[in-house]
Amino acid sequence: MNAAQRLDATFAALADPTRRAILARLSLGEASVSELARPFAISQPAISKHLKVLEEAGLISRGREAQKRPCRLVGKPLADISEWLEAYRRHWEGNFQRLDALLDELKAQEPQAGAERPEGGSL
Amino acid sequence: MNAAQRLDATFAALADPTRRAILARLSLGEASVSELARPFAISQPAISKHLKVLEEAGLISRGREAQKRPCRLVGKPLADISEWLEAYRRHWEGNFQRLDALLDELKAQEPQAGAERPEGGSL
Repeated sequence: MNAAQRLDATFAALADPTRRAILARLSLGEASVSELARPFAISQPAISKHLKVLEEAGLISRGREAQKRPCRLVGKPLADISEWLEAYRRHWEGNFQRLDALLDELKAQEPQAGAERPEGGSL
Repeated sequence: MNAAQRLDATFAALADPTRRAILARLSLGEASVSELARPFAISQPAISKHLKVLEEAGLISRGREAQKRPCRLVGKPLADISEWLEAYRRHWEGNFQRLDALLDELKAQEPQAGAERPEGGSL
């Protein structure tokens, strides 16, 4: 997989609430499939399918022990999408800054008397 | 759409290299559909489909002008997934810190003589 394909796989794996909940559980520590299945109202095979998607995206790794095969969160793909997002941070923070500037402008247009007296001073 | 459904839609929209390339182009400023289609070896209807996915995920907005309907990037959904990622930042940075600690430990185990002479001093 090249970098773009890895991003495709990571974003696709994250586009599901059950898979995100599994990652949230694993962020607290490793867990077996049956431990992961417990809080969800879905079957163990269904959980196993989700784990396969997460594993193929590199978001989890599985232990070698034949019976338990505990799952662990792997942070690297999340670090990669965080890095991808950085290119846009300026944009969304810029939007908020433009909104702040607009609000300041609107405030400046309020009647002078009220705007000049922060602590409710009387005329 | 609730918050989880918005995350689903955003992650799914980002799981495609053409859609990410469209966002990268729009991060430079608004563009019409034909301007967006130009650098890609795919048809304008195919681009329009991608734009529909991005618009439904709230990642772009379209102007009202009937002919051009310029597209603009909307940063909010990206800010939301950045916030979602924050819960995991400690995890992946923690991993790197553990790796750093391991490297320090390995360095400390190197033969003392070599480790003490940074500038290649002779015996």
